[in-house]
Amino acid sequence: MRMLSTSPRLEACVNKLRPNGIPEGSTFAASKRTHAAMSTITSTKVHNYSAGPCILPQEVFQKASQAVLDFEGSGLSILEMSHRSKPIEGVMSKAQALVKELLGAPEHYQVVFLGGGASLGFHMVPQNYLKQGGKSAYANTGEWATRAIQEAKLAGETLVVASSEDKNFNYIPKGFEIPSDADYFHFTSNNTIFGTQYKAFPKSAVPVVCDMSSDIFSKVVNVDNLALIYAGAQKNMGPAGTTVYLFDPEKLGHTGRKLSPMLDLKNHGAKDSMYNTPPVFAIYVSMLTLEWIKANGGVAEAEQRNNAKAKLLYNAIDALPLFEGTTAVEDRSAMNATFILKDAALEPAFNALWKAAGINGLPGHRSVGGYRASMYNALSIESVQVLVDVMNDFSNKNG
Amino acid sequence: MRMLSTSPRLEACVNKLRPNGIPEGSTFAASKRTHAAMSTITSTKVHNYSAGPCILPQEVFQKASQAVLDFEGSGLSILEMSHRSKPIEGVMSKAQALVKELLGAPEHYQVVFLGGGASLGFHMVPQNYLKQGGKSAYANTGEWATRAIQEAKLAGETLVVASSEDKNFNYIPKGFEIPSDADYFHFTSNNTIFGTQYKAFPKSAVPVVCDMSSDIFSKVVNVDNLALIYAGAQKNMGPAGTTVYLFDPEKLGHTGRKLSPMLDLKNHGAKDSMYNTPPVFAIYVSMLTLEWIKANGGVAEAEQRNNAKAKLLYNAIDALPLFEGTTAVEDRSAMNATFILKDAALEPAFNALWKAAGINGLPGHRSVGGYRASMYNALSIESVQVLVDVMNDFSNKNG
Repeated sequence: MRMLSTSPRLEACVNKLRPNGIPEGSTFAASKRTHAAMSTITSTKVHNYSAGPCILPQEVFQKASQAVLDFEGSGLSILEMSHRSKPIEGVMSKAQALVKELLGAPEHYQVVFLGGGASLGFHMVPQNYLKQGGKSAYANTGEWATRAIQEAKLAGETLVVASSEDKNFNYIPKGFEIPSDADYFHFTSNNTIFGTQYKAFPKSAVPVVCDMSSDIFSKVVNVDNLALIYAGAQKNMGPAGTTVYLFDPEKLGHTGRKLSPMLDLKNHGAKDSMYNTPPVFAIYVSMLTLEWIKANGGVAEAEQRNNAKAKLLYNAIDALPLFEGTTAVEDRSAMNATFILKDAALEPAFNALWKAAGINGLPGHRSVGGYRASMYNALSIESVQVLVDVMNDFSNKNG
Repeated sequence: MRMLSTSPRLEACVNKLRPNGIPEGSTFAASKRTHAAMSTITSTKVHNYSAGPCILPQEVFQKASQAVLDFEGSGLSILEMSHRSKPIEGVMSKAQALVKELLGAPEHYQVVFLGGGASLGFHMVPQNYLKQGGKSAYANTGEWATRAIQEAKLAGETLVVASSEDKNFNYIPKGFEIPSDADYFHFTSNNTIFGTQYKAFPKSAVPVVCDMSSDIFSKVVNVDNLALIYAGAQKNMGPAGTTVYLFDPEKLGHTGRKLSPMLDLKNHGAKDSMYNTPPVFAIYVSMLTLEWIKANGGVAEAEQRNNAKAKLLYNAIDALPLFEGTTAVEDRSAMNATFILKDAALEPAFNALWKAAGINGLPGHRSVGGYRASMYNALSIESVQVLVDVMNDFSNKNG
């Protein structure tokens, strides 16, 4: 792995790098030490700004790598163990319990881990919540919300009660009404591609369903107000390959539809997420990541770290005249910061600089252009500082 | 890992163990050596007879473990890499090409790797092949066929044209007719729970769909006669977490149904298995396993090894009066050998013996009882010999 620095300042910053956003001597260091099973990683790493699949904690990679060779001294790889074996049932239970604990979910809520991605969730939501002849309500805030709406339209009447499509999804709609006769309301809490995020969640008397794929476990939420949270693992929870569903089982089974058991959340809940063979390894890595979040102060402290990282980067975007954010300031995502160089002709020079600093995954999505810095839980503030230093350096040379 | 032997014969057998069923000095040894990237594993292992998830080659675990730490020197874990990055697109292409090459599929066939398990495949098959108002034909040979039929019935008229349910699925029905006006015919090539396997595949003028979850890549098949082969990875291909679909795209898109893009095989094929984020790691491990199959002589030689292992075990079952096979002899599966102790009171003593020999995963499914020895590609003939030695030993003591 190359980690080339272009200035003494960058070099110093790279040299002091510590993984996973836990500053030396911080309040997190203490809680981290209590989690003795997690090894200390000292090697430097690529500063991985990938939008997803994305950076996870180094400790998680170490433990997962070991489990692929020999799961907890069993003599077996985790990849060859029956999902019905006691150890793997233990992984499943622990992962389920951590989801509820970390999000502060009500006791009767259920957790299942399915395959298929959140895109399969787009299909399952209307199957599970839309009554025969009923209607759904959606907020459209970007690419993934649009795909969720397309799926809902295949199932029945779908009202788009709010949209920011008029401005290429660069803001979060506010003050909209959710019809009281809708069977459910669906929104996307964070918009990975466009870099916007709900700062307050919509509330409604109808069941509220939230796709939290790109900000679950990054901030505190009130689960009581939500009938269903679902999220693809590959941002803050784990690798690509599983999707978590946290739901109130009492809100299910009221549609009059005869569902395939594979699409029926109630069935998966009743079978404790083992109706069919679950994606064991992706769930195991998710469990390790959730343990890491817990050991480092839980979601509340993760939120503080994420806000500090976002502040550091957005301050630089706003302070440096060469750069410009692409979204409404009040709706800026703490997970995905989107920005451009006002003069696109400077991009090649800027690209060379951040690549030389060991930064990876910074180009923006084709529908926005420019840059996107994805700062999920496991990205350290030191990695954000490297990017900010590069931006400062670049501005000094080209301002 | 404990590997306790109960007799000098067992001990000798354990000591000479070599992994992955490639006998020393065999024709496979040469082809194995040509695959220089695969490391030689010399450590002994549990004799893993688990029905699935199940044993995979030791080399695969080694490479997969390394990739979780650092994928091919990139400085990134494979778990944190974008599925749209060049290296991961390369993994996907290689895995797809190996599926077609190893199975000898026609050039225009397509391969996709989806999440959700073969159980989601049960749902997708009628969605993709059953015409509006049409009918399907199924053979019922066990638990998984039954589940596939249940899904088909939710979608439309479903004819069960053959069944072995009358004898607890202990044989494969033969000589049945497939109606020429069915939209497709579906069968399960190997029945993991009951230990039966089609020795010849049914043929028909209507599109034939085969769930090969538990014997794909274990024997040569004529793909030309099949519109779709699908298989959960977690037997002969990889870990739990992905399902492969190999299909003739020309047989798709004729149902008149408006499908969810997530359930539409034609869509996944057109998007080259990247319509949404694929389960990257499960596909990577599958790619490694397919490379291992290729390096060891391909599917034809895997079939020879599997037949030799099956012969060794079934010969012991037939030769030892304490034991008895549970299926029709001509339909015995080379993958899952089901057998019982005629005197169930002897089970505790037998169980103690095979456990002491380092054998894992031998109890039969609850719907059959007794024992099930799953002998997938990566299980060595030496591991089968250990079981046969245990059975002989046990017979000598209790016969």
